[in-house]
Amino acid sequence: MRAAVMRNRKLVVADIPVPEAGPGEVIVKTLACGICGSDLHALKHAEKMVESSKRAGAAFVMDLKRDIVMGHEFCAEVADFGPGTQKRLKAGTRVCSFPVLIRSTGIETVGYSNDNPGGYGEFMRLTEALLLEVPNGLSTERAALTEPMAVGFHAVQKARLTPDDAPLVIGCGPVGLAVIAALKLKGQHPIVAADFSPRRRELALKMGADVVVDPKEKSAYESWKQVAAYGDPSKAPPVQPWMPGPALRPSVIFECVGVPGVIESIMSGAQSGARIVVVGVCMERDSFEPMLGITKELNVQFVLGYTPEEFGETLFNIAQGKTSADPLITGKVGVEGVAQAFEDLGSPEHHAKILVEPWRS
Amino acid sequence: MRAAVMRNRKLVVADIPVPEAGPGEVIVKTLACGICGSDLHALKHAEKMVESSKRAGAAFVMDLKRDIVMGHEFCAEVADFGPGTQKRLKAGTRVCSFPVLIRSTGIETVGYSNDNPGGYGEFMRLTEALLLEVPNGLSTERAALTEPMAVGFHAVQKARLTPDDAPLVIGCGPVGLAVIAALKLKGQHPIVAADFSPRRRELALKMGADVVVDPKEKSAYESWKQVAAYGDPSKAPPVQPWMPGPALRPSVIFECVGVPGVIESIMSGAQSGARIVVVGVCMERDSFEPMLGITKELNVQFVLGYTPEEFGETLFNIAQGKTSADPLITGKVGVEGVAQAFEDLGSPEHHAKILVEPWRS
Repeated sequence: MRAAVMRNRKLVVADIPVPEAGPGEVIVKTLACGICGSDLHALKHAEKMVESSKRAGAAFVMDLKRDIVMGHEFCAEVADFGPGTQKRLKAGTRVCSFPVLIRSTGIETVGYSNDNPGGYGEFMRLTEALLLEVPNGLSTERAALTEPMAVGFHAVQKARLTPDDAPLVIGCGPVGLAVIAALKLKGQHPIVAADFSPRRRELALKMGADVVVDPKEKSAYESWKQVAAYGDPSKAPPVQPWMPGPALRPSVIFECVGVPGVIESIMSGAQSGARIVVVGVCMERDSFEPMLGITKELNVQFVLGYTPEEFGETLFNIAQGKTSADPLITGKVGVEGVAQAFEDLGSPEHHAKILVEPWRS
Repeated sequence: MRAAVMRNRKLVVADIPVPEAGPGEVIVKTLACGICGSDLHALKHAEKMVESSKRAGAAFVMDLKRDIVMGHEFCAEVADFGPGTQKRLKAGTRVCSFPVLIRSTGIETVGYSNDNPGGYGEFMRLTEALLLEVPNGLSTERAALTEPMAVGFHAVQKARLTPDDAPLVIGCGPVGLAVIAALKLKGQHPIVAADFSPRRRELALKMGADVVVDPKEKSAYESWKQVAAYGDPSKAPPVQPWMPGPALRPSVIFECVGVPGVIESIMSGAQSGARIVVVGVCMERDSFEPMLGITKELNVQFVLGYTPEEFGETLFNIAQGKTSADPLITGKVGVEGVAQAFEDLGSPEHHAKILVEPWRS
């Protein structure tokens, strides 16, 4: 099959074997697969990513000497069945899946794996029990956005929001945009979002942000303060003598950038008592000033991925039109276009999410 | 009045003016005042502490060129009244107080201040409205422990504990011991506590720890695992295929050391989903691996001090015998002994809490 393969730290188009379906597994034809920021990172900083996975005690560590077909944000079509499958979904059915395999030997990833090719190839093997049928009428493109949107949904679930909380989203790449969509879905307004890129701020507004800020022009934290006062002052908690200033709603800040220094810059800008949800995936060492956290009694919640339930709920929310992810999609390529797409995604001005359609010639 | 004064980065005994009571303030005679680890840090790393306070945006920054009388863990006796006081408590009444002054110009600290001498001197000025009478029968020594015990009480309050949570206390200095006492008060068992010092582990047991660990001999995290299984397996959450291993109770880890590297070492040892409560006050820059937090979805809650309500509740708990802080007290000195006491507290084998009694000749 044809695939965009990571080989010797480069993306090349190659002909590789179609994976074989093990017990309880199906072979699917990839219809569309989004390019994730982590894939960009994996290509550019492959050694660092492997090292960092090892340090973090990850169960799956890629061997960079062998081929890797990335891609974990996919919509696919059931093509063939392995031994011991239930065949609940017929061949031709469009499906999404939590991008892992449940095997008798343990869990394996699809995409960041030497053995389980991801969606940048024509075919994948998936665990039948994890397949979710794409609800009738939902387009393949939208279904393929389930994975990145689930990341935002999970982050917002983990934020333990109460109706009083006023959110601030730092960084409006695909992760920040998915967080904005999930906040909108929850009715958590006003949503303040910050990004240096005009294009990204425009997308943030389309996804549901109420206020967007260019941090070059104005502090995101000051902008947040301007809209975070209690609408009805009688609902605000009493002002204590040791806490001067007008009562502001509790602050929940989503870190959606994922490069060193951002967590500390948020700790520095945050209100006292703020909760910081770290959604951006920083794969390098980072430093910070514990006193900033202590003086303000900050809370930092690191989050990762989503649960199978959240993944399914996100697909359902997209299918029901409760969440619109359409503005995210800014381009489509075949396997030949993947390497260039990785380059193009380096600039925030042109693209947010590019879908790979491996069946395109 | 006689006081142990921090002057030119040294502790010296000096005669300094008795502070004057402003509007709403009283003059109190210091009966006993504990030496806090932060005071040791303030003496040894004075510039760093000032710098760090500035970076953290603290409202109070000491001027090291001027005298400072530290001491914020005190029990005192009402001696004289400033203008506009209510005289609710008569002269001679023993009192504790949240160690700040509420002045028309704002809040000021008592102890880390050039203008408001703390408990290492014979007299202090305090805000009358903040005075809490020491309940009849409670000894002065025990009352003086209200402040350090309130720190542990607050940390445990901020930990949002549920009955299922199994705590682990890293570091059994006065902060860790106060956390252990607060966990015992809450009935949060088993309490696992780790410290390299045999003396500190002994104190931890006295304060209420169920299991103590020497990290040189055995991993604190492994020791925690051995007692953190659900006593009644039917109450454990279902084991998910992607989370192998027996179900353990949720892990809440109290960082009570406060030196660089400890937060990361806890992130590295912690269970997936653990909550880390940072009670130790690290005044230096620190570094960490965000991927450790992300992969395990850790939560880090920084805490500081206590509320006035928690301070009052702690005094009440000590007076009622609900919390015993007695094992903490390992020595008493007059103002001449303060400099040596600071030296002695550098070793964990001999002392935990030394009380200064400035009236001693």
